[in-house]
Amino acid sequence: MVIHSSSNSYKIILGEQIRFALSDFLSKDYSSVFVITDEKVAALYLADIIGNFSSKKVYESIIPHGEQSKSIESFYKLQTEAITNGLDRNSLIIALGGGVVGDLAGFIAATFMRGIDYIQIPTTILAHDSSVGGKVAINHELGKNLIGSFYPPVAVIYDIDTLKSLGEREVRSGYAEIVKEALIADESMFNTLLMTNICSVSNEQLQEHLAYGINVKANIVEADEKESGIRKYLNLGHTLAHALESELGYGALTHGEAVAIGLLFSLHVSEDVFQHPLPFQELYTWLSDNGYPTSLHAWNVDSLISKMKSDKKTVNKKIQMVLLKEIGKPTTKEIDDLSMKAYLVSFIRKLVNQ
Amino acid sequence: MVIHSSSNSYKIILGEQIRFALSDFLSKDYSSVFVITDEKVAALYLADIIGNFSSKKVYESIIPHGEQSKSIESFYKLQTEAITNGLDRNSLIIALGGGVVGDLAGFIAATFMRGIDYIQIPTTILAHDSSVGGKVAINHELGKNLIGSFYPPVAVIYDIDTLKSLGEREVRSGYAEIVKEALIADESMFNTLLMTNICSVSNEQLQEHLAYGINVKANIVEADEKESGIRKYLNLGHTLAHALESELGYGALTHGEAVAIGLLFSLHVSEDVFQHPLPFQELYTWLSDNGYPTSLHAWNVDSLISKMKSDKKTVNKKIQMVLLKEIGKPTTKEIDDLSMKAYLVSFIRKLVNQ
Ligand SMILES: NC(=O)c1ccc[n+]([C@@H]2O[C@H](COP(=O)([O-])OP(=O)(O)OC[C@H]3O[C@@H](n4cnc5c(N)ncnc54)[C@H](O)[C@@H]3O)[C@@H](O)[C@H]2O)c1
Ligand SMILES: NC(=O)c1ccc[n+]([C@@H]2O[C@H](COP(=O)([O-])OP(=O)(O)OC[C@H]3O[C@@H](n4cnc5c(N)ncnc54)[C@H](O)[C@@H]3O)[C@@H](O)[C@H]2O)c1
Ligand SMILES: [Zn+2]
Ligand SMILES: [Zn+2]
Repeated sequence: MVIHSSSNSYKIILGEQIRFALSDFLSKDYSSVFVITDEKVAALYLADIIGNFSSKKVYESIIPHGEQSKSIESFYKLQTEAITNGLDRNSLIIALGGGVVGDLAGFIAATFMRGIDYIQIPTTILAHDSSVGGKVAINHELGKNLIGSFYPPVAVIYDIDTLKSLGEREVRSGYAEIVKEALIADESMFNTLLMTNICSVSNEQLQEHLAYGINVKANIVEADEKESGIRKYLNLGHTLAHALESELGYGALTHGEAVAIGLLFSLHVSEDVFQHPLPFQELYTWLSDNGYPTSLHAWNVDSLISKMKSDKKTVNKKIQMVLLKEIGKPTTKEIDDLSMKAYLVSFIRKLVNQ
Repeated sequence: MVIHSSSNSYKIILGEQIRFALSDFLSKDYSSVFVITDEKVAALYLADIIGNFSSKKVYESIIPHGEQSKSIESFYKLQTEAITNGLDRNSLIIALGGGVVGDLAGFIAATFMRGIDYIQIPTTILAHDSSVGGKVAINHELGKNLIGSFYPPVAVIYDIDTLKSLGEREVRSGYAEIVKEALIADESMFNTLLMTNICSVSNEQLQEHLAYGINVKANIVEADEKESGIRKYLNLGHTLAHALESELGYGALTHGEAVAIGLLFSLHVSEDVFQHPLPFQELYTWLSDNGYPTSLHAWNVDSLISKMKSDKKTVNKKIQMVLLKEIGKPTTKEIDDLSMKAYLVSFIRKLVNQ
């Protein structure tokens, strides 16, 4: 698959064991290589990646795993390492890991000496989403992904064998984004997913689902790289998800777990706004069957609303939500604070009564 | 003048008193405006700028003046203010000041919520260079401008009346870049400049020189936005200049003062490499007549060389210098460490013997 962005075109390669054959996918001769990964992924796959570059200057940096690493401190530390390792404008950065590593290493590549090449080697299911589309960022204490840029990689190399070592929570987290992509794009894939038990999914199924998700994302991103229009639809479920993540503290829920709840909420609001039934119940059942957390206590509705208003998608401090007229027909709508409060209250009640 | 970049086109407007008529040059209706300036410029022109937006939400941030403000700490602090002021993706950042404010505020605009609009209102002569071309950056402790990106403004609004309050050192600093542009582009402008006494320049002359400099810069930048080819020529004199600034501590020399010495050095090396006479002596005389520092003691040659090697233009740790085959004919050349040392030693001797 090839993605065309305003600044370059890049390939997404999906396959088995391709982490051992990186040179097949690199077109330039880089002066040096800087692999950025986290401690968990390093233990599993870093040696495989380094092995591709036996004759080159290769440097590595291993960050703590988890959202906390998308900080201004890690950012500056990696910039320092890039300088002291002698990276130059012809060097390559490799982001080896999940979305955390991808977002952070991508933002380093975007800003080191005003931008150098990087490739994404995603190792989580969720990273099918983060590695495609060129969005890179770190977090601010006051909100997720607030500091970043649009900076596409030169390639995305997705070795699905690396996904075998993922824990159940990470599998769930990634699948939530695929469900989101199906909800945006078409009903039949959504129904296929609802018949899938994600903990016993086969390699073929997984590859098919990933290719589907990437395809949905890639088409949208090509049509609207800088998120002025339809790219917003990819935020289905994310208004509440981001608020929840920030409210509960990053890490309490995985990103996908928060998105799953956000998707339910967007169906709940959509049904009311468009007075048209949506598969809220079916999705709820599938999520609980697959072990997603769906009952959360101690939600502070007012605090969630104020968090939603500091979301990047907010314009003029009014909350914009992505809603579904029906499956495959997303749209955006401004929700005023009072209605939002009512929707949250009725949503929480609905979850409690399940 | 209109500049076409890969992501947008933007106008450069040069005129008198135009800081009072900003709305003439803004095409969008922004949700809010965030003016970033330094303490000296704030005292002189901030009220004029704020006065343009009486009916809008306008926020301001005043940073300490000087290179120290291009730091990761100022960067994070301004991001925080942008968030707490409620800026959104439809907000506008205004960079009101010299190159320091322009580079810093531009990098904030480039990275806040992955990029929002900004305009440059340059208030120094030097900023004719920094405000055009879309290069924005902050410094790393280990080197100048190492963290940044290419992010063009939506307009450059240059009110030359603001230049009247500049001190002599700042006038000198700015003129060094105009001399550089003349050396790159054509002999007749260079000769005109050598006949100018920059401390008694008229408003008309200044406007003519600025328009000339912007024109040279704009043409080069349009042809090579991301500095893969001819844009490098704009670094004439900068290899040594950056090393000197870093060696002596930022602020000991103004940027342009360092560039002036760097220009002399590039003529010195060029004469040897191409065995062709260049107006080293004429430039030296003009610089001293106009009060530029040209005799510096206590240069540590080895340390300068190691600083040159950490410059962004360095590839594979070899120093690339911009040289002149003749005036108006720039080229780049790799200089090995030993030759560089010999050139520096003979250059220092030449300066001492003047
Ligand atoms: N840029 C975008 O467009 C975009 C889109 C969606 C999400 N994101 C970002 O992605 C991040 C979340 O991504 P994530 O869920 O991949 O998080 P992550 O990178 O933290 O990975 C989750 C966990 O799985 C571990 N891990 C990774 N690969 C593994 C493997 N192959 N085997 C075993 N363990 C492995 C990691 O060490 C980590 O502990 C968030 O920061 C989110 O903001 C970005
Ligand atoms: N982005 C680029 O392409 C580019 C090109 C060249 C230089 N630069 C950067 O520009 C910076 C230097 O720019 P600069 O020389 O304008 O420095 P500056 O912004 O620090 O301004 C110099 C001094 O003049 C004062 N000042 C500004 N306007 C004034 C006015 N109208 N009246 C009185 N005082 C005024 C400032 O407060 C400051 O003390 C450096 O950081 C350099 O890296 C960037
Ligand atoms: Zn997401
Ligand atoms: Zn300069």
